[in-house]
Amino acid sequence: MRTRAAVATAAGKPLEVMEVNLEGPREGEVLVEIKATGICHTDEFTLSGADPEGLFPTILGHEGAGVVVDTGPGVTSVKKGDHVIPLYTPECRECEYCLNPKTNLCQSIRSTQGQGLMPDGTSRFSTLDGDPILHYMGCSTFANHTVLPEIALAKVREDAPFEKICYIGCGVTTGVGAVINTAKVEPGSNCVVFGLGGIGLNVLQGLRLAGADMIVGVDLNPARKEMGERFGMTHFVNPKEVEGDLVPYLVDLTKGGADYSFECIGNVTTMRQALECAHKGWGESVIIGVAPAGAEISTRPFQLVTGRSWRGSAFGGARGRTDVPKIVDWYMDGKIEIDPMITHTMGLDDINKGFDLMHEGKSIRSVVLY
Amino acid sequence: MRTRAAVATAAGKPLEVMEVNLEGPREGEVLVEIKATGICHTDEFTLSGADPEGLFPTILGHEGAGVVVDTGPGVTSVKKGDHVIPLYTPECRECEYCLNPKTNLCQSIRSTQGQGLMPDGTSRFSTLDGDPILHYMGCSTFANHTVLPEIALAKVREDAPFEKICYIGCGVTTGVGAVINTAKVEPGSNCVVFGLGGIGLNVLQGLRLAGADMIVGVDLNPARKEMGERFGMTHFVNPKEVEGDLVPYLVDLTKGGADYSFECIGNVTTMRQALECAHKGWGESVIIGVAPAGAEISTRPFQLVTGRSWRGSAFGGARGRTDVPKIVDWYMDGKIEIDPMITHTMGLDDINKGFDLMHEGKSIRSVVLY
Repeated sequence: MRTRAAVATAAGKPLEVMEVNLEGPREGEVLVEIKATGICHTDEFTLSGADPEGLFPTILGHEGAGVVVDTGPGVTSVKKGDHVIPLYTPECRECEYCLNPKTNLCQSIRSTQGQGLMPDGTSRFSTLDGDPILHYMGCSTFANHTVLPEIALAKVREDAPFEKICYIGCGVTTGVGAVINTAKVEPGSNCVVFGLGGIGLNVLQGLRLAGADMIVGVDLNPARKEMGERFGMTHFVNPKEVEGDLVPYLVDLTKGGADYSFECIGNVTTMRQALECAHKGWGESVIIGVAPAGAEISTRPFQLVTGRSWRGSAFGGARGRTDVPKIVDWYMDGKIEIDPMITHTMGLDDINKGFDLMHEGKSIRSVVLY
Repeated sequence: MRTRAAVATAAGKPLEVMEVNLEGPREGEVLVEIKATGICHTDEFTLSGADPEGLFPTILGHEGAGVVVDTGPGVTSVKKGDHVIPLYTPECRECEYCLNPKTNLCQSIRSTQGQGLMPDGTSRFSTLDGDPILHYMGCSTFANHTVLPEIALAKVREDAPFEKICYIGCGVTTGVGAVINTAKVEPGSNCVVFGLGGIGLNVLQGLRLAGADMIVGVDLNPARKEMGERFGMTHFVNPKEVEGDLVPYLVDLTKGGADYSFECIGNVTTMRQALECAHKGWGESVIIGVAPAGAEISTRPFQLVTGRSWRGSAFGGARGRTDVPKIVDWYMDGKIEIDPMITHTMGLDDINKGFDLMHEGKSIRSVVLY
């Protein structure tokens, strides 16, 4: 079949919206009509050329929601008409990782996904001339129709609006999940969040949901104060306005240090600050942001020996098929908010405008509606 | 009163065994006759001058066992004749840290202890000329008699031999406790231990006690192979004999990486290796060794975001008054071994020989018998 897609032809170039060929689903695969997709910094990271593993030409996008149109042989967990959210971290429920309760990093299709291919080692996308186009993060939600493995689809309730729940495919789950699944924040905790963008705001609301006492947001952009407070932030710190060093300031503010801190920027300097503002004895710091290729974090080991711990979180520690439908329920039940974070919507033809808004710091999330 | 002590008069000089004055215990303090004391790398670290917080003159030693001789006003938890192990990490059971189940780092007397003083800000030791001599880590077990705060004494059973259980005052608890309390290793785990000295061997036997499957020891000294096997090590790796990089070798050996790794050297390079040989998704790396002043650990944040975590352990995460008596029981019940690790004993007059044996890598533990 043919479908419309925004194709990333090469690093650093704007996306080109065009008709592409899409092959139907093979064994264990599912054809999905994407109804809405968010534009995430990770798409930008790859498009810019900064991602050392980025491959082109490809169809980006990994934060979508849609409807099952067709299923390949052997597919049992979804059927035509089901509403689904694509999962860049699948959940096969059979691999060594899925069977270990300590991780969500299903590895069953990792290597082909990293190469921009379906599990059988081929692509379903091609140009009208027949040249192959790669998949991206196993999702490619910047196409109106896409093919995914069955294990990479979370089936969700049908009354949830696509244009909002698409955000649960990445940003919401990554932020809220880092609090709930990775850090397991307890009620009463004092917490610090570095970076109040599309992930950080979701960490804030995750902390509100978890019953944290002090929710400190750190951002250089003063406009994020009001936005942060909207999602539960109790204290805003603009490092530009702090006299002296930021770390002791945050330690004082939190009365000895953060029980939990979260880095949602991808900057190795703020990663160190996040660790070092954690409380002696028990403070845990969680890295969510993706650092530039080759960048390294560092600290004195004394920081760890005196009781701080340093960990990371990917996709919020969520097992997608199990946890994403629950987060959709939380949204529908009003336990978390999404609507005010979706600051812009546009059609596929205007998708490059969404990237511009991101660069200018004007959007939290832009969503493309098909 | 007068007692005999090995005094560290200045950094880099041998200890001088001499008579010193010792004032009796004040409010909340206890006079203890030390019967035996181990010589630990931390004593050497301070004596060498490498410890930026080292103060002189002082009486070193923090790994002892002895008998209560006298108690000051208000002391209720120990009485004359009780057998005790001094605790450089006390347990007041009242401070914010003691009341938080996530840490063992009681802070109630931290600042005076760091200055080489009793909690009231003075020293009990002085030269025969009346010049003050500082305490060390709140213990000063290189004196035949010493004064400690009540909260820094673990009361232990009377049938346990001083010349063995003194080692529980530091090395045994630090190693075994890092496995049991900090990492909470589960039966069946695959583990890697860097450095098979006085701490690393105790990590090995902690792992054996915890039911680990694969217990890999890493050390440059081939003589440590036999010793390691004595304490449960299942695989020995000498980095000098590995072709290529050590980390991928260890990842292969452990079939994907260590569930838990432990650094017992104090070298920031091996700390990084220990983290990076941990299993993707869930591997935890625990730093036990003390690095040189100013040294920093580093890694790519990707290592954490893909599920590894980095933490530290001090005094094996043990709450001394509660946990040390249990470890003494484990020794008496044969659940852990101590005797073969105590490779040398000597009188106080020969204490500098103990430091020489450590420098030469000939001893695991030297114990001074009073």
